[in-house]
Amino acid sequence: MTDKPAALLALAAGADDDGIFLAQVPEPLCVGPPAHQFLFGGIALAAAIEAMERRTGRPALFASAQFLTWARPGDTLSFDAEIVADGRVVRQCRVTGRCGQLAFLHVQGACGGQDAAIARRDAAMPVVPPPDACPGRSMARRLSTNLNALLEFRLASGAIPDRADWSGPGGVDLACWIRARCGAPLDRRLLAVVADCAFLALDDALGPTTRGSSLDNAIRFVAPPVGEWVLAAMHVDGGENGIAHVATRLFSEEGILLAVAAQTMRLRG
Amino acid sequence: MTDKPAALLALAAGADDDGIFLAQVPEPLCVGPPAHQFLFGGIALAAAIEAMERRTGRPALFASAQFLTWARPGDTLSFDAEIVADGRVVRQCRVTGRCGQLAFLHVQGACGGQDAAIARRDAAMPVVPPPDACPGRSMARRLSTNLNALLEFRLASGAIPDRADWSGPGGVDLACWIRARCGAPLDRRLLAVVADCAFLALDDALGPTTRGSSLDNAIRFVAPPVGEWVLAAMHVDGGENGIAHVATRLFSEEGILLAVAAQTMRLRG
Repeated sequence: MTDKPAALLALAAGADDDGIFLAQVPEPLCVGPPAHQFLFGGIALAAAIEAMERRTGRPALFASAQFLTWARPGDTLSFDAEIVADGRVVRQCRVTGRCGQLAFLHVQGACGGQDAAIARRDAAMPVVPPPDACPGRSMARRLSTNLNALLEFRLASGAIPDRADWSGPGGVDLACWIRARCGAPLDRRLLAVVADCAFLALDDALGPTTRGSSLDNAIRFVAPPVGEWVLAAMHVDGGENGIAHVATRLFSEEGILLAVAAQTMRLRG
Repeated sequence: MTDKPAALLALAAGADDDGIFLAQVPEPLCVGPPAHQFLFGGIALAAAIEAMERRTGRPALFASAQFLTWARPGDTLSFDAEIVADGRVVRQCRVTGRCGQLAFLHVQGACGGQDAAIARRDAAMPVVPPPDACPGRSMARRLSTNLNALLEFRLASGAIPDRADWSGPGGVDLACWIRARCGAPLDRRLLAVVADCAFLALDDALGPTTRGSSLDNAIRFVAPPVGEWVLAAMHVDGGENGIAHVATRLFSEEGILLAVAAQTMRLRG
């Protein structure tokens, strides 16, 4: 671990131990232009996953987030994790993220499962070089200097535009190795943060200068996270009426499928 | 169109035009053993999609449902569609499905988009024969006589167990052509119903006699539905700690990707 900031909110349990968790939004966890910085959506989803897991005492199985509006640097957030259906094996949850009284995030999910590890079936990691053999790429220009300071990106296949005059052929999938610069080992929260980087796949698939705002993000956990690096293999399904759907598969360095994620984005030219 | 029953609930707008829609649960839309029949989850999701679309006046972009408990034959249901974030291009929604006062369904979603049709990028329908060249398969044994009376299934690739002593090799994907027996053309609601048949993929992937209960179902619409037949191409990601995640891609008879769906299931031996 280093002294670099973690790519996660610090959640404090509320006084009443009632499933409400509180957090401040530090500016380093925000993205967007200086006049319009907002908490990165994947970090909000990660906080909701942590709230679900702390509320239920069980690991998350899946979490599906709907992003309603932005949380800003310095805002105080609450994450209210309710158990909406409870069973011996699975505890279903709903989390409402609020900024003051205003809901900015809705999350549906479930925690639990039996104790045995999930074995990956039919693993099909894309054939790419290991992280050490892939070129590092800055995301400072593509997204924000803040996200680039939190996460380290290495290009495994496809392309990431690094010049304003870049043009790609379109129809190409993108795969990146990603890890937290603070040295934190992978956990389910970090997988959610990484899964929300799927907008990076839009250039390769749809052409340069495409920007997307996430409407939602749904992540399903397949195997326990291990190691530091995760391969995010992204694929864009459709994208011409101002909407794109992106699917992301997340693999460990050993090629184990850790999670699958999907989100719908509104495109901006 | 025939006089066979539609695979959809009949939704009536509430008296106050306030986004609440009402429906009765007819027994033919229920599955499960006689002593424990319940409304098929995909039909509940389809009703929520219709409620979102009627509330917003716009087509659904995605819908993510969490199944909390069962609705029974004869129950009166309400679907309360709220607009939780509203914009010029996208109207975000939440739908609460209730049976009396009890919430049995939560749905998050969005409607809208711009007018141009989405062009499918990188279409990759599995290579399978057309519906007329595929064998019809009854699902009466595999699920229920009711679902089999609503939907016609033809096996395009993989296998569907039809004997108690069936054993498959595992690790195989399943693809079926499916249409409504009533002759209704495909629409987004029917795609949601079909997407919730993904439990059929469990046998091929994980071995025979695996049963699954859906915890959720999330569907993302890529292109406007056309025709009657839809190919449901299903793939199981993981499945050994009592949980499986299934991804389904839905294609038109012409090979156009219409929607992608994903769900998490609790497995029962």
